[in-house]
Amino acid sequence: MVKQARAQITRDAIILGAAKAFDRQGYGMASIADIAAEASVTKGALYFHFQSKDEIAHAVIEQQHDRSFSAGAAIIEEGLPAIETMIRLCASLAEQLVTDPIVQAGIRLTTDVSNFERPVADPYEDWLRTFETLTARGIEEGDIVATLDPAMIAHFIIPSFTGVQLVSETLAGRTDLLQRVREMWTILLPAFVPADRYDALKDLPQLVPTTPAAPAS
Amino acid sequence: MVKQARAQITRDAIILGAAKAFDRQGYGMASIADIAAEASVTKGALYFHFQSKDEIAHAVIEQQHDRSFSAGAAIIEEGLPAIETMIRLCASLAEQLVTDPIVQAGIRLTTDVSNFERPVADPYEDWLRTFETLTARGIEEGDIVATLDPAMIAHFIIPSFTGVQLVSETLAGRTDLLQRVREMWTILLPAFVPADRYDALKDLPQLVPTTPAAPAS
Repeated sequence: MVKQARAQITRDAIILGAAKAFDRQGYGMASIADIAAEASVTKGALYFHFQSKDEIAHAVIEQQHDRSFSAGAAIIEEGLPAIETMIRLCASLAEQLVTDPIVQAGIRLTTDVSNFERPVADPYEDWLRTFETLTARGIEEGDIVATLDPAMIAHFIIPSFTGVQLVSETLAGRTDLLQRVREMWTILLPAFVPADRYDALKDLPQLVPTTPAAPAS
Repeated sequence: MVKQARAQITRDAIILGAAKAFDRQGYGMASIADIAAEASVTKGALYFHFQSKDEIAHAVIEQQHDRSFSAGAAIIEEGLPAIETMIRLCASLAEQLVTDPIVQAGIRLTTDVSNFERPVADPYEDWLRTFETLTARGIEEGDIVATLDPAMIAHFIIPSFTGVQLVSETLAGRTDLLQRVREMWTILLPAFVPADRYDALKDLPQLVPTTPAAPAS
């Protein structure tokens, strides 16, 4: 048991080291030696857990998506109205992107299409399904215009969020990300919400904080 | 003169070869030898024009942005209403992304943040300025809600388009890109257009064709 726990600690240290090395040097330039040094483990210990840089990168993406998606699941379980849940999900991922180096690295590895032979699609599919379900529920709850197609809405919100965080990273090192996500929902709300519900819902974008609530993990 | 023209032809062939090599192998994996082979030039000829892969990549981005931005300038010069111009600009870039290998490679090099030491920001800045100006004109023309902030709108449209094309590439090899850009404007129009102008403008998203008009260059 102690041995297993120690192995898990080493594996997590390698994943965090890889996240930092990828962030500083880019995936292409970071070597296995760089990752081992960043994680303070020997190359031997690293190769005990991972066979290649590609495998480490996929472990970073997996851990990032686990963190982001389980934070999302906790929000969904609160049972709030769907439109509020959607905004809180975007706020949660934006906060993780500002504070958590593994989330930063995992999302960047996902959006840098050239890194892998096949682009990483599963995280998008998970979020698309989630937002399609939420949009359908938002229509039932009367908070989203009934003529809108839930799949179409999901296929716009998820890519939009993807682009907003990418451009924020590129132009501002993500310093304006929370503000941009709040603006995103300020712009989208009149497009989604029926006119007679707008006054009741128009302050929802303020659910996106302008400074992150959670400290870096 | 002949010599100069021949040098330009070689340079263009290298840029096109690099675009294809980056597309197939990714920027990180494509070697100078791969690019020379794809361009059917010798490595010596390649090094006469470019000192490094990094320099070639920036030339690809520059040529892509020139093509995309000059196609955009031609649309702006038509003097159409601003809201229509904005939709046509998105349609034009989407069509280039479906048909033109240099545009495909240039955009991917721009969005793959890890490729370069400093992320590529200039193309975003050019498009942000353009869309901010157009949004301000759209407000003057009465087609965009006067309370919306042009900078905020531009800072949402450009990232949204960036994400829509990125996710379309990742999930569908861009086969659904034109449809997704049309849907983007179908969703955004009610958010931007004053209620009393909506009926007159609601068919504008159909300006985005669902099959590309221009053949590959």
